[in-house]
Amino acid sequence: MNAEIIAVGTELLIGQIANTNAQYISQRLAEVGVNVYYHSVVGDNRNRMIETIKLALLRSDLIVITGGLGPTQDDITKEVAAEIIGLPLVLHKESEERIKEFFKKINRPMVESNKKQALIPDGTIVIPNNNGMAPGSIINFNSKTIVLLPGPPKEMKPMCDYFISNDLIDSNGVIKSKYIKIFGLGEATLEKKILDLIKDQSNPTIATYCNDGEVTLRVTARARNIEEARRLLNPLISEITVRLGEFIYSINDEKLEEVVVKILKDRGKTIALAESCTGGMISARITDIPGASKVFQQGAVTYSNKSKVNSLGVEEDALIKFGAVSHEVARQMAEGIRRVSGSDLGLSVTGIAGPGGGTESKPVGLVYIGLADEKGVNSWEYKFTGNRDSVRQITVLSALDRIRRSLTDK
Amino acid sequence: MNAEIIAVGTELLIGQIANTNAQYISQRLAEVGVNVYYHSVVGDNRNRMIETIKLALLRSDLIVITGGLGPTQDDITKEVAAEIIGLPLVLHKESEERIKEFFKKINRPMVESNKKQALIPDGTIVIPNNNGMAPGSIINFNSKTIVLLPGPPKEMKPMCDYFISNDLIDSNGVIKSKYIKIFGLGEATLEKKILDLIKDQSNPTIATYCNDGEVTLRVTARARNIEEARRLLNPLISEITVRLGEFIYSINDEKLEEVVVKILKDRGKTIALAESCTGGMISARITDIPGASKVFQQGAVTYSNKSKVNSLGVEEDALIKFGAVSHEVARQMAEGIRRVSGSDLGLSVTGIAGPGGGTESKPVGLVYIGLADEKGVNSWEYKFTGNRDSVRQITVLSALDRIRRSLTDK
Repeated sequence: MNAEIIAVGTELLIGQIANTNAQYISQRLAEVGVNVYYHSVVGDNRNRMIETIKLALLRSDLIVITGGLGPTQDDITKEVAAEIIGLPLVLHKESEERIKEFFKKINRPMVESNKKQALIPDGTIVIPNNNGMAPGSIINFNSKTIVLLPGPPKEMKPMCDYFISNDLIDSNGVIKSKYIKIFGLGEATLEKKILDLIKDQSNPTIATYCNDGEVTLRVTARARNIEEARRLLNPLISEITVRLGEFIYSINDEKLEEVVVKILKDRGKTIALAESCTGGMISARITDIPGASKVFQQGAVTYSNKSKVNSLGVEEDALIKFGAVSHEVARQMAEGIRRVSGSDLGLSVTGIAGPGGGTESKPVGLVYIGLADEKGVNSWEYKFTGNRDSVRQITVLSALDRIRRSLTDK
Repeated sequence: MNAEIIAVGTELLIGQIANTNAQYISQRLAEVGVNVYYHSVVGDNRNRMIETIKLALLRSDLIVITGGLGPTQDDITKEVAAEIIGLPLVLHKESEERIKEFFKKINRPMVESNKKQALIPDGTIVIPNNNGMAPGSIINFNSKTIVLLPGPPKEMKPMCDYFISNDLIDSNGVIKSKYIKIFGLGEATLEKKILDLIKDQSNPTIATYCNDGEVTLRVTARARNIEEARRLLNPLISEITVRLGEFIYSINDEKLEEVVVKILKDRGKTIALAESCTGGMISARITDIPGASKVFQQGAVTYSNKSKVNSLGVEEDALIKFGAVSHEVARQMAEGIRRVSGSDLGLSVTGIAGPGGGTESKPVGLVYIGLADEKGVNSWEYKFTGNRDSVRQITVLSALDRIRRSLTDK
């Protein structure tokens, strides 16, 4: 089965956004063994949309179209697709109810144009939208399949997952990927450690990619079924695990904060955070995980010196003598938040994220992380490079990794 | 002049990378008034590449192709393009010298396959590559233009800039867009308010799109020069500003947190935050803005009831009587953080982000925002829909918007 992804939207053609929808759908289709041969992007223009969909019907078995399902005048994807196939649009009662519910809940009047979103091509399979209003459709037509999905990624992604897991198990076998997540090793160093494995690869294959200081290894096997794929993957994953050891934080594509919350739960420990340069980002990441309230009770964003003294009991003398960005203050912040919150662990972060605030002795990118537990307090110095955003992101990951390592003695 | 961008590369079709090259080239072409009507992506496959380029020659005046100019076997873009047009490939001496120089510099022997990169379609204009080996080409053919650029963004971008500034200054003028950012109005409601403007549009044009509760209006003018574009845009922007009024937070494509920090600075006010369900996200957003330390001193992430009592002075009675997610507790949190921090404003958030924790009387999505200032304290109730992430994101925006409105009396 070969596929084509059509993204509809003028915002793509003027370069306002990148076509990350096509990337996501491509990844998911590759996982189930569907070959994507083309991506196309076309604007909210009737004639060019017709031309593009007709061409896709000639050359591709599966056509996934995203975008243009909104309530406004220039959202015409559904209308155009239905017209090409010769299906009338009919009201989908359940979707209409969902849209009505939605407006009731948010206490806003439902506008007439939103009703248009509940129309679907007659006889098609509906993909429910749990994060927005436009339902998706799966249209089977002359041994071809057209899938219509909305454009906003947070709506599109779960709907794409839904149609892939429910309707498109490929008969030629499966492609199964596992993602090994690594922190604290550069891509080149990592590659050196497994160079022989990379050189020998055929099935499974190994690919590395890095993002904001994390490296992900994707190992992918093609097989007749999932069990066979697992049998191919497991020995390779074991070998990589032995080689990279402590630097691996997940072999199940988890986020670092997910792993940290899981370990805290398993150990029955609680944590509190005192953040300066990260300004609440670590708390936000931890509380992003459902059920984080079991292990996380309190965070303090102590941006000013005054708040470090008042909320955490940092000594004014230490701030004067060593400065806010120092081992000493990081330690006092960690001990302070642990004491104030009554948590098992107290983690602190203080640093200079830039662009301003750097000096010769304390340049932008200098960060201290402190960690206090029942045994005492530790602190670490980091010198990061990059802009404000990069420094803050890598600091968040480094802090989460410190928690992981301290709880697993790595 | 209308254009099409073709990106060549299997890594795009399997979703390993997003097509950021097409985004970049689209932006640059829009700046010089060239309409991009299509993006296409095709793999390193001879037949599909021929089909794609031939189709582009039928429907587009300018075709920009990126990728597939490397030294390896599967880099065939140049060969395929030359074949379609009927031009032989000839050695470009200067490029050959550049490649030789490059290998001398890095002290490595030049590989035979790299010589292939110095070949160009006969008679074409060469775009020098200062960051890599493959030169680019501009091929004029039957009143069409094909531009070949390499795939790596750091090579492609300056070469794109070069050909745009040297060879394609569009005689038809410029395209200028302004982005109006709106919060608190649904896309459909918003459209109703400006439907006549949308229906009348020709130049400037109006487009709406929404993301996570925010709506952006793009107004775009075509003109002979920037001044004329501004003269076309300004009356329309004024009219939209009158119609949408308080719901507009920026007419300069700013983020809501940017606007909030700016207003706080202008007014000489400081703010402190007490976050429960958003877990530090609002603090993180505000401290993302360089120089936020002038207006933001302290945040408290009070996830547990205990921390609400201990750090903010929320009354235990209020927690028992009204529950943590209530008007009363939101108000006490806002007053508490204002008092503890000594800031001018205290903002609080308490809610149920889900997926767990909801009850019939207090469902997932129920959120209270409190805001205390020198005049007293206010609180607002919200009922959001969507998953944990959506509820948290829209809560962050709603809180930021409350600050903006309170400071500007909107």
